[in-house]
Amino acid sequence: MGITLEKADQAVRAALEKARELNLKMNIAVVDAGANLTSFARMDGAWLGSIDIAIRKARTVRFFDMPTGNLGQASQPGGPLYNIEHSNGGLITFPGGLPIMGGNGEVIGAIGVSGSTVENDHAVAEAGVRALA
Amino acid sequence: MGITLEKADQAVRAALEKARELNLKMNIAVVDAGANLTSFARMDGAWLGSIDIAIRKARTVRFFDMPTGNLGQASQPGGPLYNIEHSNGGLITFPGGLPIMGGNGEVIGAIGVSGSTVENDHAVAEAGVRALA
Amino acid sequence: MGITLEKADQAVRAALEKARELNLKMNIAVVDAGANLTSFARMDGAWLGSIDIAIRKARTVRFFDMPTGNLGQASQPGGPLYNIEHSNGGLITFPGGLPIMGGNGEVIGAIGVSGSTVENDHAVAEAGVRALA
Amino acid sequence: MGITLEKADQAVRAALEKARELNLKMNIAVVDAGANLTSFARMDGAWLGSIDIAIRKARTVRFFDMPTGNLGQASQPGGPLYNIEHSNGGLITFPGGLPIMGGNGEVIGAIGVSGSTVENDHAVAEAGVRALA
Repeated sequence: MGITLEKADQAVRAALEKARELNLKMNIAVVDAGANLTSFARMDGAWLGSIDIAIRKARTVRFFDMPTGNLGQASQPGGPLYNIEHSNGGLITFPGGLPIMGGNGEVIGAIGVSGSTVENDHAVAEAGVRALA
Repeated sequence: MGITLEKADQAVRAALEKARELNLKMNIAVVDAGANLTSFARMDGAWLGSIDIAIRKARTVRFFDMPTGNLGQASQPGGPLYNIEHSNGGLITFPGGLPIMGGNGEVIGAIGVSGSTVENDHAVAEAGVRALA
Repeated sequence: MGITLEKADQAVRAALEKARELNLKMNIAVVDAGANLTSFARMDGAWLGSIDIAIRKARTVRFFDMPTGNLGQASQPGGPLYNIEHSNGGLITFPGGLPIMGGNGEVIGAIGVSGSTVENDHAVAEAGVRALA
Repeated sequence: MGITLEKADQAVRAALEKARELNLKMNIAVVDAGANLTSFARMDGAWLGSIDIAIRKARTVRFFDMPTGNLGQASQPGGPLYNIEHSNGGLITFPGGLPIMGGNGEVIGAIGVSGSTVENDHAVAEAGVRALA
């Protein structure tokens, strides 16, 4: 369903490379079009709590076909989707999750990265996405 | 308990019609007076994460006999029901869930809609309720 | 992903008809190829505990692309898949869940029925599948 | 903690190779000495329900430092660990999970494989372990 293991691995490897370049320890997850875990890598010494966050970020992206950070803007107090994080067994809505698009502009999967600041998480996720463009 | 399958299906069909008219892809759930899922429809291509949200909206309505959006006003930081979303296995308190009333003004069920903006979710839920009035 | 709402509704309606013919009160769920709930109906007065079972049966079928009853034979004490029910948030492995196949023999969805004996659950599920053949 | 990402990936790659050789579609998970997911791969078209099972097998191994199948012998009705599967959020105790040992005979991680018969799951897991010996 959507992204293949080959492509998912390619995105994970590109994200790992970016993380090493930035001297970061990351957890990186890629899900397919069905929001099913397809490829995952945890760098040595990366935060233990970030395994779950990386996977949830990737799943959250695919649940609503948008970057996690976009959803997080709408889920703030007073925002239209306040506390949407309580759905689907727990969402993560801060940056670090990005959609992976197919040739026809459809969402074929998603990448989630966790282990550093949200800016770094986002940058590493972006490197993963860019590898498939 | 409360709404029949026949009436619940009628509400779902009216909501589907409204969604198509507005060119939206929705998940629509109706629960009975016991907050038990009675009828559900997921339009082709609707957000994956909205299945759970539509059902939770309908259940949240019946848990407190008020529209989800009303509860969401009271659950904001500083509000009287701050973070009530943590109860009952996870509530959804933004708009898109509405009570279905019986002939004597009692709540006989609820409808929850998810798949677009909260304004659209609300409009489609309203169409479902109106079909039974 | 796989079965459309139109086809899913068709299967549910055929199952409902069969249930009425047999004078049974059933919960009927259809999931798509991604194991996502697509259509659901709960007959008036059907067992409350069967809502969850019908949905789990449909999901279990798609998780392993086989009838729930087949999986249940392998999950018995001493069997090769003993206690597989503990995976995926809880499986149901007794009869009443059947795959829905597409034109090329691929699984495009699944139906789960619960509310009576497993023989009756199976018969009603079969009526749903047959409507799409 | 224990196995590195480099070694975990090596085990996953060897397991993938074995799975392709046997013409099987597998989900393969490696956890470290802390039972934390370290590397994961899902082959295209593998059973959806086996993602969770592969990860649970790997974790179950490390929880008790023995192959999943050994634990499953003790968890049968009348056995000393009857229904131990209810612990730790859900264990999987049939074959397909194996410990990965370090140079001094200590457990440094575990591999879990799911997607076929338990014999095949076990054979593929064994190929992963052997690659690190």
